[in-house]
Amino acid sequence: MPSLPDMMTPDAETLARATGKGEAVAPATGTPEHDLFTGLTRLGDNTLILGHRVSEWCGHAPVLEEDIALANVALDLIGQTQLWLGLAGSVEGCGRSADDLAFQRDTWHFSNLLLVERPNRDFGHTLMRQFLFDAWHQPMLKALEESSDARIAEIAAKAGKEVAYHLERSADLVIRLGDGTEESHARMQDALERLWSWAGEAFIGDDIDHRLAQAGVMPAPESLRPVWDATISEVLAEATLKAPETTFAHTGGKLGRHTEHLGHILCTMQWLQRAYPGATW
Amino acid sequence: MPSLPDMMTPDAETLARATGKGEAVAPATGTPEHDLFTGLTRLGDNTLILGHRVSEWCGHAPVLEEDIALANVALDLIGQTQLWLGLAGSVEGCGRSADDLAFQRDTWHFSNLLLVERPNRDFGHTLMRQFLFDAWHQPMLKALEESSDARIAEIAAKAGKEVAYHLERSADLVIRLGDGTEESHARMQDALERLWSWAGEAFIGDDIDHRLAQAGVMPAPESLRPVWDATISEVLAEATLKAPETTFAHTGGKLGRHTEHLGHILCTMQWLQRAYPGATW
Repeated sequence: MPSLPDMMTPDAETLARATGKGEAVAPATGTPEHDLFTGLTRLGDNTLILGHRVSEWCGHAPVLEEDIALANVALDLIGQTQLWLGLAGSVEGCGRSADDLAFQRDTWHFSNLLLVERPNRDFGHTLMRQFLFDAWHQPMLKALEESSDARIAEIAAKAGKEVAYHLERSADLVIRLGDGTEESHARMQDALERLWSWAGEAFIGDDIDHRLAQAGVMPAPESLRPVWDATISEVLAEATLKAPETTFAHTGGKLGRHTEHLGHILCTMQWLQRAYPGATW
Repeated sequence: MPSLPDMMTPDAETLARATGKGEAVAPATGTPEHDLFTGLTRLGDNTLILGHRVSEWCGHAPVLEEDIALANVALDLIGQTQLWLGLAGSVEGCGRSADDLAFQRDTWHFSNLLLVERPNRDFGHTLMRQFLFDAWHQPMLKALEESSDARIAEIAAKAGKEVAYHLERSADLVIRLGDGTEESHARMQDALERLWSWAGEAFIGDDIDHRLAQAGVMPAPESLRPVWDATISEVLAEATLKAPETTFAHTGGKLGRHTEHLGHILCTMQWLQRAYPGATW
């Protein structure tokens, strides 16, 4: 029987199943290739899981234009996933495609921030999650445009154009709903309080992040905090919303330790490739 | 690439994947073996899907005793599934086990009644669904004790003891909640109205059912209606609940045409065997 892998680095059997190559071996922990693979999957898993979450709104949004707008954001994020995970697979060198990484890894191999796997709840909650993410995502991509790795700089430039619009839109809606009716204000304040402690993980780096920053490949997570803080303060003030005072942050997603929600997302998202391995269209 | 099967009878590729035998061929439609296999999976799929649904309550019921009681009912149903699907696999003769049938078929191969895939909603709704099912299940098993097939009669005798208790319990709770507080009454009436049109499918037979009835293997579905009607009338009257007047019944489940809920159940239920085919413990 196949043993259940218990760490982020895939074992030979997992790789062989995904790639059909028995001899594939993933880069060893601590090597530049492993660092780069990890940094890239962290980016691609964020966009994949948030893109999938947002796509759950398709056909359910309160008005038609918002339905299409949400679907558009989801598509942008999934498109970015193709690029990040495609590059990750090529860096890993075991023959795994973006689709293999999306559909044939299990929860403990996913490195997305816990924020993006939070359930959608109501429309305001979804928008608040989007805003907290976009306010990190936009400066992250701006910094990645200066990456010493030209492939990363190129993807970041393309994605950055889309994400600048995401941030403009989510900030605008947070303001309109926060500074709106009594009910919309209450819902946005509630969303902010529920989501706040899931936002801080994005700014906590580990050894891998810091080696990538040292090499000029990706920015240190901590370096993005001041810009994020400024955006959040400005938008929340205009939205008449008040951020909780706590700085507590749930962590673990970047290391493959997830909430119960990720498993359910993967059950649905991976169903087809799990039930019909290798199916194409 | 594997083609997606579009009918209840599994194609050779599906069977080969499930059994590891390339030459397996399922009994042809219209043969006694196919009829019997279908009749048995209809029984086993009902208990499997309802058992799984009820198990979703584990750890979430309003009081501890109800939590354990629900888990017990779920276990009874899953235990019965082992027997029905185990016999179905042996009748089919392709080497598929009860686990293969539970974990490696897709929605369009499941033949459970649509009633059992309805979502749990609140505790009262879950109990109403259980009562509507038990009031059919109990006389069904009683009739199956007289089956001309001794293997079926034996399973029915064992399961019947458990299900007599299920019916006693669900009827009792429908009465206590229906004839309880204003809120519990309103919830039970709402549950009854939501579920009513999903209950009638159990009493509509097709050619397979009628051939099985002709051979004395299983009762004709229509023959169970009078007993069900009597139980429902008596219990609802005592519960001060009023059944809707419509006799409309949603159908399709017995033929593999399901609501969107079944796919989500299977995504969760089949995850491990889909992600790690052949895993044992």
